[in-house]
Amino acid sequence: MKFIDSTLNEVDASVKLSEKAFQGYKTIDAKKRAAFLRAIADEIEALGNELMTTAMRETNLPEGRIIGERGRTTGQCRMYANLIEEGSWVEARIDTALPDRLPVPKPDIRKMLVPLGPVVVFGAANFPLAYSTAGGDTISALAAGCTVIVKAHPAHPATSALVAGAIENARIKEDIPTNVFIHLYGADFQVGKALVEHSLVKAVGFTGSFAGGKALFDLANKRPTPIPVFAEMSSINPIVLLPNALESDAENWAQKLASSLTLNVGQFCTSPGLLIGIKDEHLDKFIAALTKAIEGVLPGDMLHSGISSNYSRKAAQALSQPSVTKLSKPEQELVSQQGTPILASVPASEFLKNPLLEEEVFGPFALIVECRDKDQMVSVIEYLQGQLTATVIGNADELIHNKDVINLISQKAGRLIVNGVPTGVEVCPSMNHGGPFPASSDSRFTSVGIDAIKRFVRPLAFQNFPQSLLPKELQDENPLAVWRLFNNEWRK
Amino acid sequence: MKFIDSTLNEVDASVKLSEKAFQGYKTIDAKKRAAFLRAIADEIEALGNELMTTAMRETNLPEGRIIGERGRTTGQCRMYANLIEEGSWVEARIDTALPDRLPVPKPDIRKMLVPLGPVVVFGAANFPLAYSTAGGDTISALAAGCTVIVKAHPAHPATSALVAGAIENARIKEDIPTNVFIHLYGADFQVGKALVEHSLVKAVGFTGSFAGGKALFDLANKRPTPIPVFAEMSSINPIVLLPNALESDAENWAQKLASSLTLNVGQFCTSPGLLIGIKDEHLDKFIAALTKAIEGVLPGDMLHSGISSNYSRKAAQALSQPSVTKLSKPEQELVSQQGTPILASVPASEFLKNPLLEEEVFGPFALIVECRDKDQMVSVIEYLQGQLTATVIGNADELIHNKDVINLISQKAGRLIVNGVPTGVEVCPSMNHGGPFPASSDSRFTSVGIDAIKRFVRPLAFQNFPQSLLPKELQDENPLAVWRLFNNEWRK
Repeated sequence: MKFIDSTLNEVDASVKLSEKAFQGYKTIDAKKRAAFLRAIADEIEALGNELMTTAMRETNLPEGRIIGERGRTTGQCRMYANLIEEGSWVEARIDTALPDRLPVPKPDIRKMLVPLGPVVVFGAANFPLAYSTAGGDTISALAAGCTVIVKAHPAHPATSALVAGAIENARIKEDIPTNVFIHLYGADFQVGKALVEHSLVKAVGFTGSFAGGKALFDLANKRPTPIPVFAEMSSINPIVLLPNALESDAENWAQKLASSLTLNVGQFCTSPGLLIGIKDEHLDKFIAALTKAIEGVLPGDMLHSGISSNYSRKAAQALSQPSVTKLSKPEQELVSQQGTPILASVPASEFLKNPLLEEEVFGPFALIVECRDKDQMVSVIEYLQGQLTATVIGNADELIHNKDVINLISQKAGRLIVNGVPTGVEVCPSMNHGGPFPASSDSRFTSVGIDAIKRFVRPLAFQNFPQSLLPKELQDENPLAVWRLFNNEWRK
Repeated sequence: MKFIDSTLNEVDASVKLSEKAFQGYKTIDAKKRAAFLRAIADEIEALGNELMTTAMRETNLPEGRIIGERGRTTGQCRMYANLIEEGSWVEARIDTALPDRLPVPKPDIRKMLVPLGPVVVFGAANFPLAYSTAGGDTISALAAGCTVIVKAHPAHPATSALVAGAIENARIKEDIPTNVFIHLYGADFQVGKALVEHSLVKAVGFTGSFAGGKALFDLANKRPTPIPVFAEMSSINPIVLLPNALESDAENWAQKLASSLTLNVGQFCTSPGLLIGIKDEHLDKFIAALTKAIEGVLPGDMLHSGISSNYSRKAAQALSQPSVTKLSKPEQELVSQQGTPILASVPASEFLKNPLLEEEVFGPFALIVECRDKDQMVSVIEYLQGQLTATVIGNADELIHNKDVINLISQKAGRLIVNGVPTGVEVCPSMNHGGPFPASSDSRFTSVGIDAIKRFVRPLAFQNFPQSLLPKELQDENPLAVWRLFNNEWRK
């Protein structure tokens, strides 16, 4: 099957159709939008085995992983459906009039969040379902009342086509306006560029490489009318290893971290790529155990040949830097798209001099930074760029004594983990998936969990409006029974 | 008195001090921060008459206006103090662990909003107190736990110095770390540029011209590490005049709009600069009444000579465009900094062809766009750029029949007004002061009201954290008694 790139004329026509659809979709009741999202989940499940085999064929991901990801995708649809059906997420605030106030009367003002307009979504290569065609960006935007144009990821076009078909079936079943969701192909960068630059597009969601996300961010900011881009990009997810934890538990942490960093051939944006420890006998013991554990993991097929060749190239680049020592055994002859887990180490003094060593090596690669002492460890943490996650491993007492370290690293990441691994992004209200640049383009938002909907809305205030012209969420009688800040008091 | 620009070395040193102060300030209890904000209000009031006379001298604003603005400024300090003392604004979410969940256990995750870091604030010329040194940007950032560097507006340096002194007194009285607030002078653009480009600065607040705000926005996005800029910039605040309202009430609306657009010599960002009506006898009657009312308003002193010469230039430019008719009488000889109210009209067909006519003329200037019919009125609304406000004036019935017009214009503005005037920005939870570009650089945020604090914070998730290392807002016992989403349920 062939997937043909949209022409620039088709891009223009699609955005115009999306904008037209937005005019209808934004006024549709939340209940109806919720039914649409649930129908999308049902239709994805109805694709059954065909979706499984297609996604596995296009991504080399194992069946268990695809099944899990499908559950996550349909779970997200139902989570946003529940959120908008309940309705309080619109942050309704009502301040009633004080006509007798002096020196001037106070008018009646009410405010809530409203959708921005057509949103362009670029799916991720490594999550063909949960961060792709019907992934978190698409579903949170549709939940908000935005229309969505997805540019299918060129690495899994058939999977994307199947999911797009499911969304279209759901749309028809639930009688949602045509073109609320539009699916385009664009292996060529020109298609994505034209979408981001189109004057009727109001926001962009992206998950992928730093180069890709930053390019879209720059395009969006250079428009005559800039638009927000939420790009989830690059992270090496540092792990700080405190000495006592290694003394008492080196073997256990070596096993856990080896599993985390080699899971799905290291193709997670939260894969731990940087381990920071203080050079002593316990770190040596930990390194020996981790090296052994990693050497025991077989090379696996990566998502596609572009990813695997990029992995080889970036890993080789890191390994060729001054004072970097490769710890794991030389690679075997690899079959085409495989990626071998690699562990390397570097003295902190060298790490602090060489920005190349902070670049993400997407795949099962980790670099251990060996620090002379705690002061140098602090310098390494201070030096780090923004991250999706940061992890601290330590015994109960030493965590308390290293509050300064935790405080410092908290400024570098969107999610902090104590004595755990960063892989495994729970979909729940408390999740934050995002972080200081370059982890994401705007640390003020998350791309996972209910709050991801906030990326695609803006507040709109209504002053002196007659009841009949107000959205239901702001009417006196509160027909949707949402939580509202009513004259400075929470009411339902 | 002379106010000397900071050198670039002083800028660098100031930002470093601000960052150092942030490390302490961000961990200070909200109660203590609240006391600091209240002390700022007290100290501003304690400046008494000196602040009044200085601000009046530097801005030409009348005493009543300065008194009102001082009340608004101190009111904002106390409003944010109340907000952070209550504490629920941090959007705490807690999801407790499910260690027995299959296929993988669910970890304990908690999330809240945390401050970004040092914030640079550029005050507004037209609000020497409420949008300036201790204005909404500064106080909401301090409330959030950010440190602040204010670049004093060169048009009112002495006022700014007095207020900076009040903040410093409050800081000392409440035992807040040194350099939490830093005050710099920088009439030269290089000072502002160096502040926005400094790697330790994490966000920018700005109120002023489009040229100024856009320049800072571009600088911030071109940094190696881009940062968010909230710039409140340019708006002509369209008023849609529906025919029946003019038929029944032309004289009344003419009076109200004349007052609104000439208030304080039109120097409000919400001043109504564009009136859109359908050409008929009622519009003619309204125009005649508005012309007469505006001619009855005496020229007033503008904020400073730069503003008045800019007003003359921009008004002359608009009046010289094809088919623009000046309706108000020729100006008298003006004394140096005065601005005369000016009313002009243009056929919609011309307005739609000439982008110069959509540019803000900051001052008491309004352009009436005369439409052939409702279709053409819709075209004019569709054509408009983003605005802070949009107003619709109509009788009860015709408002209902013009839902399409209200729906359309709602996409163009941050605040909609029915049968009122856009000037007068209430400080209350429901206020939205911001709007689609170019009204502001990010329509997802407001710069007035409690939600303005959201510009300077980001979510941070804590996974598997021991209780003693969690912020109080996220501890099991909820010692601050804030509202939290606890396992998907609101609890306090």
